[in-house]
Amino acid sequence: MFEVYVAAKFEAAHRLVGDFGPATRMHGHTYRMEVIVRGQHLGDDGTLYDIGDLGLAVNDLAGSLDYRDLNEVSGLASVNTTAEAVADYCWERLAPSLRDRGLDSLVVRIWESRDAYAAREDGLD
Amino acid sequence: MFEVYVAAKFEAAHRLVGDFGPATRMHGHTYRMEVIVRGQHLGDDGTLYDIGDLGLAVNDLAGSLDYRDLNEVSGLASVNTTAEAVADYCWERLAPSLRDRGLDSLVVRIWESRDAYAAREDGLD
Amino acid sequence: MFEVYVAAKFEAAHRLVGDFGPATRMHGHTYRMEVIVRGQHLGDDGTLYDIGDLGLAVNDLAGSLDYRDLNEVSGLASVNTTAEAVADYCWERLAPSLRDRGLDSLVVRIWESRDAYAAREDGLD
Repeated sequence: MFEVYVAAKFEAAHRLVGDFGPATRMHGHTYRMEVIVRGQHLGDDGTLYDIGDLGLAVNDLAGSLDYRDLNEVSGLASVNTTAEAVADYCWERLAPSLRDRGLDSLVVRIWESRDAYAAREDGLD
Repeated sequence: MFEVYVAAKFEAAHRLVGDFGPATRMHGHTYRMEVIVRGQHLGDDGTLYDIGDLGLAVNDLAGSLDYRDLNEVSGLASVNTTAEAVADYCWERLAPSLRDRGLDSLVVRIWESRDAYAAREDGLD
Repeated sequence: MFEVYVAAKFEAAHRLVGDFGPATRMHGHTYRMEVIVRGQHLGDDGTLYDIGDLGLAVNDLAGSLDYRDLNEVSGLASVNTTAEAVADYCWERLAPSLRDRGLDSLVVRIWESRDAYAAREDGLD
């Protein structure tokens, strides 16, 4: 099994709703988004998936969240903007263009700091 | 599948017993402990498991090993204090409070340096 | 399940062939090689596999690629030197000495930068 990984970052504000102490105050993070695709076979060009192409998609997505208030982003405004929810949001936006490309699964990790992340991993079937 | 990760560090001394060359001399590391919990579903609050709560548990455990001689810690004194053994020790201490919380598995990685770690991963059933 | 990880780095030049834009020009990276072995049981000495021994094997392999043009390395000269291909090359060279040692699987990740890697993971049976 092979995998390809790319990372990007974005600066965003957010606040949680519920029993989350100081995280319910408006604050923000330098988020790091890590994206991994997995599959069984390399193509004739020696790639599982072009890292440059994956990087463009990931940077586009990160750019769409950069210097934003996540609580106002369409698709996140109706949910609690936990790292899990942001990972889920990013997973759903990346997955469509990665299907039917010979890939088995997709992982999206959203780091809120060097010491904490949440991730979603699921098949691309 | 979702996962949540937190990390903490502790400064500890140890020495190995057996055919481990210079590692049999008393020495130490700035250990980094990485903890990952995995599960299938997010709760209504948008979390798999509260990162803040997990962070408290991990920091408590790291604190209990901070500025200690691992060879004298109860639960490690009778084993060789390899990174695997420390990961196993930490896994066993974190697992009880994580069971019956809708989580599937727990990973504990113990980094002895930026270039080396050992980990234990097992189900929380 | 336990795992042991070691990392090493090497400085190498390469160029891709095909539709890879600027990556088709001769360039290079400070590559980081991450190697993980996995298995079910610790030995009586408290190790899955001696981190020091694994580190020597990984450093030897990294050393063999250090300050080289990957396109001229035997075993890589006939393929496109993508990160996937380099991971595959390194996987094949590390695996033989790791078989029949009670290990289940081997992962090799080849980082081209802090933001991109490719990996191969397969069983050691």
